[in-house]
Amino acid sequence: MTINEAKEKLAALQQKQAAFAHASSLIYYDGVTGAPKGVADNRAQTLSVLSQEMYLLATGKETVELLEFLDANRAELDRCEARQVELLLKDIRMMQKIPMEEYVAYQRLMVEADDVWHTAKEKNDWPLFEPVLQRIFDTHKKFAAYCAPDKAPYDYWLDRFEEGLTMARCDEFFATLRAHIVPLLQRVLEKPQLDNSILHGHFPVAEQEKFSLELMKLIGLDLDRVGLATTEHPFTISFGSHLDERITTNYHEDDFSNSMYSVIHEGGHALYDTGSARELAYTVLDGGVSMGVHESQSRFYENIIGRSRAFCEYILPVAQKHFPALAGRSADELYRALNRAEPGLIRIDADELTYALHIMVRYELEKRVMAGELEVRDLPAEWNRLYHEYLGVTVPDDKHGVLQDSHWSGGGIGYFPSYALGSAYGAQYLRKMKETVDVDACVRAGNFAPINDWLRERIWQYGAIFRPGELFERAVEEPFDPAVFTAYLEQKYTELYDL
Amino acid sequence: MTINEAKEKLAALQQKQAAFAHASSLIYYDGVTGAPKGVADNRAQTLSVLSQEMYLLATGKETVELLEFLDANRAELDRCEARQVELLLKDIRMMQKIPMEEYVAYQRLMVEADDVWHTAKEKNDWPLFEPVLQRIFDTHKKFAAYCAPDKAPYDYWLDRFEEGLTMARCDEFFATLRAHIVPLLQRVLEKPQLDNSILHGHFPVAEQEKFSLELMKLIGLDLDRVGLATTEHPFTISFGSHLDERITTNYHEDDFSNSMYSVIHEGGHALYDTGSARELAYTVLDGGVSMGVHESQSRFYENIIGRSRAFCEYILPVAQKHFPALAGRSADELYRALNRAEPGLIRIDADELTYALHIMVRYELEKRVMAGELEVRDLPAEWNRLYHEYLGVTVPDDKHGVLQDSHWSGGGIGYFPSYALGSAYGAQYLRKMKETVDVDACVRAGNFAPINDWLRERIWQYGAIFRPGELFERAVEEPFDPAVFTAYLEQKYTELYDL
Repeated sequence: MTINEAKEKLAALQQKQAAFAHASSLIYYDGVTGAPKGVADNRAQTLSVLSQEMYLLATGKETVELLEFLDANRAELDRCEARQVELLLKDIRMMQKIPMEEYVAYQRLMVEADDVWHTAKEKNDWPLFEPVLQRIFDTHKKFAAYCAPDKAPYDYWLDRFEEGLTMARCDEFFATLRAHIVPLLQRVLEKPQLDNSILHGHFPVAEQEKFSLELMKLIGLDLDRVGLATTEHPFTISFGSHLDERITTNYHEDDFSNSMYSVIHEGGHALYDTGSARELAYTVLDGGVSMGVHESQSRFYENIIGRSRAFCEYILPVAQKHFPALAGRSADELYRALNRAEPGLIRIDADELTYALHIMVRYELEKRVMAGELEVRDLPAEWNRLYHEYLGVTVPDDKHGVLQDSHWSGGGIGYFPSYALGSAYGAQYLRKMKETVDVDACVRAGNFAPINDWLRERIWQYGAIFRPGELFERAVEEPFDPAVFTAYLEQKYTELYDL
Repeated sequence: MTINEAKEKLAALQQKQAAFAHASSLIYYDGVTGAPKGVADNRAQTLSVLSQEMYLLATGKETVELLEFLDANRAELDRCEARQVELLLKDIRMMQKIPMEEYVAYQRLMVEADDVWHTAKEKNDWPLFEPVLQRIFDTHKKFAAYCAPDKAPYDYWLDRFEEGLTMARCDEFFATLRAHIVPLLQRVLEKPQLDNSILHGHFPVAEQEKFSLELMKLIGLDLDRVGLATTEHPFTISFGSHLDERITTNYHEDDFSNSMYSVIHEGGHALYDTGSARELAYTVLDGGVSMGVHESQSRFYENIIGRSRAFCEYILPVAQKHFPALAGRSADELYRALNRAEPGLIRIDADELTYALHIMVRYELEKRVMAGELEVRDLPAEWNRLYHEYLGVTVPDDKHGVLQDSHWSGGGIGYFPSYALGSAYGAQYLRKMKETVDVDACVRAGNFAPINDWLRERIWQYGAIFRPGELFERAVEEPFDPAVFTAYLEQKYTELYDL
């Protein structure tokens, strides 16, 4: 095999993997959008066959030999090819350690779990979900032991979602957040609460749909490449990164801001995925590098842009065109309503200030279950206890508690810290971006191009070429510092609540 | 390899094929339902990878050896296994004759053609579609020459959609239809036209959607397994036959019958697919045996049931609940309106009497292009000439003429005769069914179970176990006789128009 033949095979391998990923993702997406209710068995069957094919393709002798050959000839690879080989080998070495039947059984478990979780949440039935979640945690522990026997299992999974992340780093990070957010929230709660009556009224779904498309265009999404659908839980999914991306939202007729923030949040993910350089198409480098960086894009758009005063000034007249209920209201009223800080039960409804506390509950629980210090069956009680301790709220039932998120049923143990990390990354983007871009003026004018150009140039275009830490430091030209985030929060809420 | 090992491998092979088929079909379905407009390139890329995998799986040494081993040991196979081997070998021997690159290029061509046809139809732009259609016809001729060099190319494709169908049989069949339908239509047109004003009014889409679901339940579809979506052109697609089926419709706010018949027609297809015996799951025998038999189910439901007086009696009060525009109307008015015979331009809007004439135009044209007697570039002129000759109508533009159907862009050359054949099959089902089922009384009562039981017992459950001709003859216990269909039409229209 010559090096050029090997490079061609490397491209063909990734094209195949991209096709399988497209097919598998679409089957999942169909399951939560158009599919009839009773077909999860068929979906599970197809996904298990496809995952078996993907496993065999990735771990097959031909693939392993190819990648080892390329790895041995790194000097002749360009930066992208070298990183492709690195990531593929990392994945393969992981997969090789997991017996195929267990890998395929896990894919099946995910389909089953998704189904069971939906029902359990709907019926507020924790005992229905518990045995499935037990199997998920057990499998995650087992896979971690196969793949990284020298690591704590939870560290293995944190690293899967954010290369380089560990419990030690999380503990420190969350301690910093807690030290600032808890007293800040206390000061906020001593003040008179902000009025959010502007958010409540009648906002017909049909108009919200039109508004969603307008928002997507506004923030710079190409509607020819990015689709919108409605699902119970908003998410973003890629069928080919910059080539075909879908976001979903969920409409509440009594509060238009709910879907607005889903669209902006998921839109931020989609901007990142579709912002990859064209030449990354059909390679493992296409799309985002990690969930932390991904959430930094979505939460930057949702909060730092979307909950800014400038955004409220731009968006109010746009929203008023769609919703007569907003007539006569001011941008300041909207800004204050959208930033009302209030401890609550539901993570996705949380404001920018209390959000991280919701994440900390999940982090604590995951960490302890993965370490064997907490039993799955004790999760609801412990969830409720921590919500009381961190947020001061009483959880009335599991539907509004431990059953609220789809992450665990989707295998996302170790994912949650990405949200908080992403929020903190975003504050540093903003500080750096402001050196060259008048962010407020752009947002106030509905002109997102300079903001997107900055993000594209420093982050999006690179896909997974750089590791997350390196990508972040190149973008902001300094190390990660959560104090920038807490300072941002302190400034914002001091002004808002006149502290 | 023992025979039992081989049987297990046979099952595994078909499970794999079913998974690939599910994935490929879903990618197509997504393309015409939820996908953004600009992602056909990504779809084409994935489908070409998957079709290459399917090709390699089907024609690979391991598969061929397996099937030849099983074929050599037919005596030890049960009826289903033997038929599986027969059908798989037939397919493989065909695929082996087509070079893989050409097979994969054809899959890509299909995605491109679908896209180009949509645009061409929308813009009434035949020259845009012509070169793509030229390539499709060329490819079909070439594939026929590869696979059946001793057959006329069109005979090869007719057989692909209806095993055993030939031009000789079609010529005879259509001559019979023409000899009866043309004079019958003439007599109808000499009479005063039936009033169809009942169909015109305002029928809001949201209510039509509810009505669609009610229709689906009424005719016996399991809504947990059969989904409904909206597309420009209604169709049925299977992601696992009796396990996961989707139908689509298209709503016209000024005529509720349009979508009603799409739902009933596609519902008929779905009843057939989902009526396969459970043990056929994940085998090539699951679902329908041929397009002729498939259309016999859909058109039986659409016309023989759905355009009967009894159905109008049952459905009118149901429709009235949804559509105030129908208040005060009678079932007789509805029956007459839904059976108004009138030569028109659009096949899918055609009544039961003139429908076959639309098919004959397409049959003639396909036959002549495939025989090299007509050039693709001359299709529009010839289309218009034949519409004038057969139906007496003047085609105003290609959008209402040669560009109206999706079949050619989807590679369905040779498909159209299935519609006419299916209609004729249906009349014979009715005659036989009436020996044991009081069809009119059942329909009048909205009780479709006895009708479905008859169809399930004699047709649906068998999937592709029997060849179409054998299946048909077993069901009606006599040979195919188009005179039963023409007699049905003559009786129906004589009564309707008082001839």
